[in-house]
Amino acid sequence: MDNIEIIGLVAAVLTTSAFLPQVYKTWKTKDVSALSMPMLLLFFSGIILWFIYGIYISSLSLIIANGITIMSYALLIYFKTKHGK
Amino acid sequence: MDNIEIIGLVAAVLTTSAFLPQVYKTWKTKDVSALSMPMLLLFFSGIILWFIYGIYISSLSLIIANGITIMSYALLIYFKTKHGK
Repeated sequence: MDNIEIIGLVAAVLTTSAFLPQVYKTWKTKDVSALSMPMLLLFFSGIILWFIYGIYISSLSLIIANGITIMSYALLIYFKTKHGK
Repeated sequence: MDNIEIIGLVAAVLTTSAFLPQVYKTWKTKDVSALSMPMLLLFFSGIILWFIYGIYISSLSLIIANGITIMSYALLIYFKTKHGK
């Protein structure tokens, strides 16, 4: 693995783990008022395309990061649907 | 520009424009309670690395997306600092 891919993988770890406290906080507080549904859905569509793009350009970092982020966002959308007004 | 880069650019438009309603909602409501500061800071560090990674692998999509997202997150961090408890 080259140095460039290591930068990408560190980026992937940072951005994907960034969602863990958000998901945890949302799960614990049930407070979804400041999460905007248009934001969640737009972002969800976007990361699916990033995942496809990552496969095409053979970027391991993009594939891993977006694969995990897709699952995190699916959870946030579920919370918003269940607890949002 | 090839078809693969078009997929990346559409992904870039979706994920970056996803922050606009979030930033607008935060600006309007001043409600930063459901935004987690660890999440904001982790993500901010991550997108800076994605930006560097994008430059190294010559991915126009990654450079544009992360350049704009860095600015959006800087704004959210400012709101959280100013209005958060």
